[in-house]
Amino acid sequence: METDQLDLLRVVLVATRNPLNIGAAARAMSNFGLFRLRVVRPYDTAFREAQSAVGASELLRNAEVFSTVAEAVSDCTLVVGTTAVGSRQLDQPVHRLDEGGLLIRAHLQSSPSAILFGSEKRGLSNDDLNYCHWLMRIPTRAEHDSMNLGQAVAVCLYELIRSDGPLLPTVEAKNAATGEEAERLTRVLIEGLGISGYIKPGTEAATEEKTRRLIRRLKLTSSDAETLTGMLGKMSKTIKVDRE
Amino acid sequence: METDQLDLLRVVLVATRNPLNIGAAARAMSNFGLFRLRVVRPYDTAFREAQSAVGASELLRNAEVFSTVAEAVSDCTLVVGTTAVGSRQLDQPVHRLDEGGLLIRAHLQSSPSAILFGSEKRGLSNDDLNYCHWLMRIPTRAEHDSMNLGQAVAVCLYELIRSDGPLLPTVEAKNAATGEEAERLTRVLIEGLGISGYIKPGTEAATEEKTRRLIRRLKLTSSDAETLTGMLGKMSKTIKVDRE
Repeated sequence: METDQLDLLRVVLVATRNPLNIGAAARAMSNFGLFRLRVVRPYDTAFREAQSAVGASELLRNAEVFSTVAEAVSDCTLVVGTTAVGSRQLDQPVHRLDEGGLLIRAHLQSSPSAILFGSEKRGLSNDDLNYCHWLMRIPTRAEHDSMNLGQAVAVCLYELIRSDGPLLPTVEAKNAATGEEAERLTRVLIEGLGISGYIKPGTEAATEEKTRRLIRRLKLTSSDAETLTGMLGKMSKTIKVDRE
Repeated sequence: METDQLDLLRVVLVATRNPLNIGAAARAMSNFGLFRLRVVRPYDTAFREAQSAVGASELLRNAEVFSTVAEAVSDCTLVVGTTAVGSRQLDQPVHRLDEGGLLIRAHLQSSPSAILFGSEKRGLSNDDLNYCHWLMRIPTRAEHDSMNLGQAVAVCLYELIRSDGPLLPTVEAKNAATGEEAERLTRVLIEGLGISGYIKPGTEAATEEKTRRLIRRLKLTSSDAETLTGMLGKMSKTIKVDRE
């Protein structure tokens, strides 16, 4: 891939605990020519330890820190979560790594993308997954599907640079809505649902999750997201509920 | 790949120092369904530490220990060395990982193969490379080509299992000479060269190396190796040198 395409990929580590794993992820990124590392809610001491380690790379020192996944992917038009799948029930599309890699490469031809890696113990949380357009699975054995984080990062990034093979045509990537635009629409919609009484007491969290995922499935363009946000915002403001 | 094909692959770690790296290599093997780990001259304490670590796998406890590369690959008909290449001058064929992976997969359809990984500091030594039929390179950046050992193992093994794509036809793998057969022929030839006065004083090591590599380039079948060994052995025994 072209260097400027690789520069559009953000590697996002969410709630990583072990400084060695942060360092290993950074090293694999440097090996494969990727430099945009973002960390979300790292264990503070672990992250500082990794940054101050002997031989810590410029890449690691330049890593950006975020407190939420939403902020970390706000400029990305494609957000991909990595998962071992395992026994979890997933209602999002899951692509095997070789197929997912092609989709990401196609997207990177014109637009920023993020790959999310969860914590060593639990992977990505259900809430983290809500910000993903789809999920990607490394084809490990069912009997031992959980990979070491540094190795998982290396394998995923290798898939992206492994060959100069043909790319799938990229249709919508160029005008796709960013994470920030998708999230703005999500919040406007949730707000509207709340005011309107659509959300029953006790189901707030479930509805928010359902909504967030639904928006990511829409393959929105920026302008469509903006239009919809304007429409729903307007609706929200004009909802009148009869209070009993 | 079929399980019984994967069972024909030996992962060989040569002179590994860090127990965490041995553990990481074993974990990646287990993730991808490979179970034949061999270690050559491991730092004793490092290896014992890795084997006795909490959660050490059966795979690691079953690892075979060898004192030479020759013994570790004696039953293999294909021996592949991994290298970052870098500034080293290599006179052996080097395949990029995606291409090398195809060749190994084709070979594994019928015959045992080994992939060698060198030590963290120096990689495979020149002497280790002498036992390899060809070398394989992970396509890292020239400016940072040295990978973490555990990550390099993970990436190489992933390449082998990543897809169920078409295999190259395997022609000679089934009857290819084993490492032991190739080495037997090598030694007979070197002995003959020594007795014959071909080897000039001071060039013993260089000639031995040249010979060992030459034999590996021949793509020998077992029966051809046996025939040649018999022929050269016979010649050696009958050489008469006039002593002045």
